[in-house]
Amino acid sequence: MQLSDCRVTIVGLGLMGGSLGLALRSDQACQEVTGVARRGETVRRAEERGAIDWGTLDLVQAVKDADLVFLATPVRTIIDLLGRIGPHLKEGTIVMDLGSTKAAVARAMAALPSGLQPVGGHPMCGRERAGIEAAEPDLYRGATFVLTPLERTSGKALSLAQDLVEAVGARPLILDPETHDSLVATTSHLPYLLAVALMDTLGEVGARDRRVYRLAASGFRDTSRLASSEVTMMLDILLTNRSQICQKADLFCRSLALLLSALQDEDEEILRQILAGAKRQREETAFP
Amino acid sequence: MQLSDCRVTIVGLGLMGGSLGLALRSDQACQEVTGVARRGETVRRAEERGAIDWGTLDLVQAVKDADLVFLATPVRTIIDLLGRIGPHLKEGTIVMDLGSTKAAVARAMAALPSGLQPVGGHPMCGRERAGIEAAEPDLYRGATFVLTPLERTSGKALSLAQDLVEAVGARPLILDPETHDSLVATTSHLPYLLAVALMDTLGEVGARDRRVYRLAASGFRDTSRLASSEVTMMLDILLTNRSQICQKADLFCRSLALLLSALQDEDEEILRQILAGAKRQREETAFP
Repeated sequence: MQLSDCRVTIVGLGLMGGSLGLALRSDQACQEVTGVARRGETVRRAEERGAIDWGTLDLVQAVKDADLVFLATPVRTIIDLLGRIGPHLKEGTIVMDLGSTKAAVARAMAALPSGLQPVGGHPMCGRERAGIEAAEPDLYRGATFVLTPLERTSGKALSLAQDLVEAVGARPLILDPETHDSLVATTSHLPYLLAVALMDTLGEVGARDRRVYRLAASGFRDTSRLASSEVTMMLDILLTNRSQICQKADLFCRSLALLLSALQDEDEEILRQILAGAKRQREETAFP
Repeated sequence: MQLSDCRVTIVGLGLMGGSLGLALRSDQACQEVTGVARRGETVRRAEERGAIDWGTLDLVQAVKDADLVFLATPVRTIIDLLGRIGPHLKEGTIVMDLGSTKAAVARAMAALPSGLQPVGGHPMCGRERAGIEAAEPDLYRGATFVLTPLERTSGKALSLAQDLVEAVGARPLILDPETHDSLVATTSHLPYLLAVALMDTLGEVGARDRRVYRLAASGFRDTSRLASSEVTMMLDILLTNRSQICQKADLFCRSLALLLSALQDEDEEILRQILAGAKRQREETAFP
């Protein structure tokens, strides 16, 4: 089976699911895109925006004839959905997701009926804004799209998943789920926690002196941006990647402590070395 | 004396000084803008870009006839310059700066000859890029511009400083130097340290697995942006605001520890409360 023959069902029509539908349909990459959401209004808007060919509130109806099912909800909902849809899928259906942590999803995928083909997925893109209105066909373009197949996943299923990733303009990167979770703890989850704690600190200072808000400019704005992320989505991510996140936070706290101790000691040479190292590193990092 | 009659001298023709010259000259806000830099090439480019009427490498020549002198260099150079220019300025000259910390600058300003009029300044704007080529006339537009007059500063001098701030499109905010340093420790210096320690953490993880760089997307990019700041400028800022920065870093570490402990304990209710609070706070903060 080729991607162009596939009937794709997307469960969850928010920013990620909606953008996936828009990307697949604008390129006519597959035969049909079906959507399912919890609210009729979301389905209607997804249809209007052209993110899906048709939509429904009925999960079973939406997935039973699909060749490829995409779960595009918060992580713990993905895990719940995996338990629910298994019995209704036809033999050979590829089951993918867009969740930001992969080990917990992989464990739930392992419990799917043996005839199904699970492939975990995590595209490294997003926006502050959530929901179908924020969806856009180019969201995935240029992004790294991690795929985490299980041992049992067939080469054909993985290859089709890779075709889909490339069809939406992203670049597939195959990782095992644990490695994925360890790496994104550093690149996504730790930065989020820093942004949250930074906002918390601003709030504490601001409670004593409101003028602090007049001094928060573009540097603060960018450093704290991730604190605007969707709470339910982030809660699921944090709770399904606890140990990796705590480990990376520990590394971070040690770096910060070193920096603060050099500052306390007025150790200009060490300070300059750390600051220059960080600047050089950041300039060498190729961000999308 | 009115701003339009003033001969303004800018010492340091980088991003901040160059942009100030461009803003003053494009509005014909003052009579003349003189520039002084360490390198002839910088003076030449500042002239070519129209940031100054004329420039020189001779500090004394540049400041001796000025009505208003702006020191636009890293903080410790500002402090050094204040010691050097004092004897060469004419009675009544207003001495301002653009340094990012104000208490240490205020102490150095207090040592200026009594006939001079010191007004510390700190505009809440900037760019990642440095140097005269990055200068732009609209850099100050809409930014809060902190002014920290000394006790001895006359109302007339302060009023003229305010006129200048408004002439470049910024909004003056008068603060005492210690309050300024306490507030910007939260809004600027702490975020910078977080960005540096975050880059350091990425480097440590990246040394073991290069693939982590493929997973660093827009969230990481924004959270770490400040790590690209000029090292010498930041070193001066950190070293002249140590105790305030360490105090705010302490607040931050306590917030982060609380967050991590709720995560360790899987205390979903507390976690949701903190995350939602940070999101709400950030959305309520009006960034420029």
